[in-house]
Amino acid sequence: MNTALSAMGRRTAPPPISWLMQTALSRPKLISLAAGFTDNATLPVKISRQMLDQVLRSAKTGRPALQYGITAGETNLRQLTARHLQELDLGGTPGRRPLIQGQRHAVPPEIHPWEHLMITGGSQQLLYLTMEALCDEGDLVLVEDPTYFVFLSILQSRGLHARGVRLERDGLDLTHLEIVLQRLKHSGELGRVKALYLVSYFHNPTGATTSFEKKCGILKRLKKFEGAAGHPIYLIEDAAYRELRFGRDAAPRRPRSSRRDDPTTPPSALMAPGALARVIYAGTYSKPYAPGARVGFGILPEPLFTAVQRIKGNHDFGTANLLQQLLAGALQTGLYNQHVAKIQKRYRRKAQIMRQALARHFPPDVEIWEPGGGLYFWARLPKHASTGVKSKIFRTALKNDVLYVPGGLCYADDPSRRKPDHEMRISFGNGSEENIRKGIKRLGEVLRKFL
Amino acid sequence: MNTALSAMGRRTAPPPISWLMQTALSRPKLISLAAGFTDNATLPVKISRQMLDQVLRSAKTGRPALQYGITAGETNLRQLTARHLQELDLGGTPGRRPLIQGQRHAVPPEIHPWEHLMITGGSQQLLYLTMEALCDEGDLVLVEDPTYFVFLSILQSRGLHARGVRLERDGLDLTHLEIVLQRLKHSGELGRVKALYLVSYFHNPTGATTSFEKKCGILKRLKKFEGAAGHPIYLIEDAAYRELRFGRDAAPRRPRSSRRDDPTTPPSALMAPGALARVIYAGTYSKPYAPGARVGFGILPEPLFTAVQRIKGNHDFGTANLLQQLLAGALQTGLYNQHVAKIQKRYRRKAQIMRQALARHFPPDVEIWEPGGGLYFWARLPKHASTGVKSKIFRTALKNDVLYVPGGLCYADDPSRRKPDHEMRISFGNGSEENIRKGIKRLGEVLRKFL
Repeated sequence: MNTALSAMGRRTAPPPISWLMQTALSRPKLISLAAGFTDNATLPVKISRQMLDQVLRSAKTGRPALQYGITAGETNLRQLTARHLQELDLGGTPGRRPLIQGQRHAVPPEIHPWEHLMITGGSQQLLYLTMEALCDEGDLVLVEDPTYFVFLSILQSRGLHARGVRLERDGLDLTHLEIVLQRLKHSGELGRVKALYLVSYFHNPTGATTSFEKKCGILKRLKKFEGAAGHPIYLIEDAAYRELRFGRDAAPRRPRSSRRDDPTTPPSALMAPGALARVIYAGTYSKPYAPGARVGFGILPEPLFTAVQRIKGNHDFGTANLLQQLLAGALQTGLYNQHVAKIQKRYRRKAQIMRQALARHFPPDVEIWEPGGGLYFWARLPKHASTGVKSKIFRTALKNDVLYVPGGLCYADDPSRRKPDHEMRISFGNGSEENIRKGIKRLGEVLRKFL
Repeated sequence: MNTALSAMGRRTAPPPISWLMQTALSRPKLISLAAGFTDNATLPVKISRQMLDQVLRSAKTGRPALQYGITAGETNLRQLTARHLQELDLGGTPGRRPLIQGQRHAVPPEIHPWEHLMITGGSQQLLYLTMEALCDEGDLVLVEDPTYFVFLSILQSRGLHARGVRLERDGLDLTHLEIVLQRLKHSGELGRVKALYLVSYFHNPTGATTSFEKKCGILKRLKKFEGAAGHPIYLIEDAAYRELRFGRDAAPRRPRSSRRDDPTTPPSALMAPGALARVIYAGTYSKPYAPGARVGFGILPEPLFTAVQRIKGNHDFGTANLLQQLLAGALQTGLYNQHVAKIQKRYRRKAQIMRQALARHFPPDVEIWEPGGGLYFWARLPKHASTGVKSKIFRTALKNDVLYVPGGLCYADDPSRRKPDHEMRISFGNGSEENIRKGIKRLGEVLRKFL
């Protein structure tokens, strides 16, 4: 008898990372530089306890937190999140405000409209819902080359195709984007292109940040090809790591003029001209606050907002109210911002330790991309080397109890180029300072052996 | 320019209930007997505060609750849930244990295997994931006629079709099920039939409960047609209301022999012969504990479990750990069972008030289905009457500030029969005792005017 599974049920591959995680669990002495987990020691245990105690202290606030809400999310959290985004986009020196029609403007209120902001079960759910509302099987999404591998898993599962656009250290290569779009136009595939997916801050896996100018450039180029496509081509900005910046202007609420200008935290694409109709912004409280609370959000233009809201209604009628009230409390009291300032310091310190260890232990012919925030370093070995799960380097590293994410896992199945196989993502997010030092030392020794 | 939306994005209809909810919000004096909300006054505010305080009191338990977990859910909650299910299936007099091969057996441990139990964002997410893993566009699902309308919304959104099977007061009409399957076989559509969806306890919207014998009968008939279908046909048992029973044997932990046998709580379909390979059991802690915590679960046979787990990985990598620890704490301390006993009493009381009010105010030619648990009464008017949103009855009720769910919304789009339009779902879940009395009085007055 055949299986009854749907095409999607049959097709959906196991997550590439699950094998790595299983491996980590089965070797207790293994140091994992692979996981994208956040720092365990700074998780906001006390703040969460305090906030939840506050919410559940009275029936007046406790009952609504334990009852059904509305699909798009609680109004207070939606408003607080929109205001928080506005602060992120205006934070920094006034000079950093983007040019709109040649003049530096204050942000009009509709740039961060809470009515078009939806609360989701992490930003991952927002990405999934967006793909459901936007893409039919066989459609195309442009992605950075490399990109976030769980987004690639969504595409794989849903029968969607990806085309990679070259990534430079300051973000997407605009010239290559134009070439890719031209090629798709010539091959008659442009009508299937629905969106470009961009991890805009401290990119997963490379740590690269796309400048505001580049975001404007991307939108302009997508717009240019819309006529030939016959429909809008959206820019999906995944800003999951945005708040994990190392910059010393990290502390919130300082007067703007005293903040240094920080190229690692440009305004979001929402601030670009024409963004309101074309940018889907995906944000999350998982990375800056707590993955175990799993609250994310998105801003979506119409008709996407309505479509995504309806589909989310069928998924879960809205994200758990109790978690929404936890986040609302943390934002409202300012404890959220205090916590973020704390983890920024912590990640800065851990990144510094990894940087020093890399300089000391890695062979000089490995190119290191240093991030300005986030959780990852990106190491590029000479092109003849292979870092894949079957390579000598990977297997020897594993034997020496150290694990990394092979770069190849982060590249889309794009028939127009060979998948690079000589890179690795190395995370300092979850390890202790000691394990970061030890792990990089072990990995460096393996590399010196083979390079 | 065309929209870029996918077929699903374009197709997905607004939830039928959203208009009703909006209407309720815009009329402050309106008494809503429509919402499926749970009783507000008994939400477990104190227990939740205590449990979360416990989890977040130390870094040792607090940090894992705020960190990422695994997609299928936390092991402790999965094991506690499996054990809880086992208690539900064995609870009651020994005579109620199902026959397996002619003998009354203790349940073999693999009937409730925690390894095949997955924690989800409410049971709604489990239903959605199951449809993704099981059904391609154009596939067919058999449903009770009428059925849970948000399940119908999932089908509508995903381009799936439903066929209704007649519902009797003691559950699905097996003779009609056989007829429907025969018809589908003759029309060549049986190959598209993937599952039968059953709301087995205190059915939404009718309150009916399907007996264990009928569950066995359903499985037998589905099995009989599998050869012709060419693949398994699954039974999806949605047990969302299972624990909301009124029976006086509700208090937990009493010795079994002192519990009265209660026909409203038969064993689940998991206990039927052959169930392990064919039953998908969907359960939830939303209804018996708190919708705002939104934790549900499912038991799925292979290859469905693996497919659903992979797809859930792409949705959200697993349900928020913090909420899972909240439920695990409540189950482990026994506070969950205490709470359930309390709300059972509360709902019994509210149902009694509604029953009395219906007897007093409704015209005698309205047939009332009295539930043995759950949140709903089902009222069947004479067939010539209409209860739809455009009907005189509905509009007059609204003018008199009382709202119900028109029965027609709960019927699938099934071309093989006319949609009944003369029924209403009336909920006592969320209203105060006074509002239940007043609401039924108002509605009775409207009905007396038109019948």
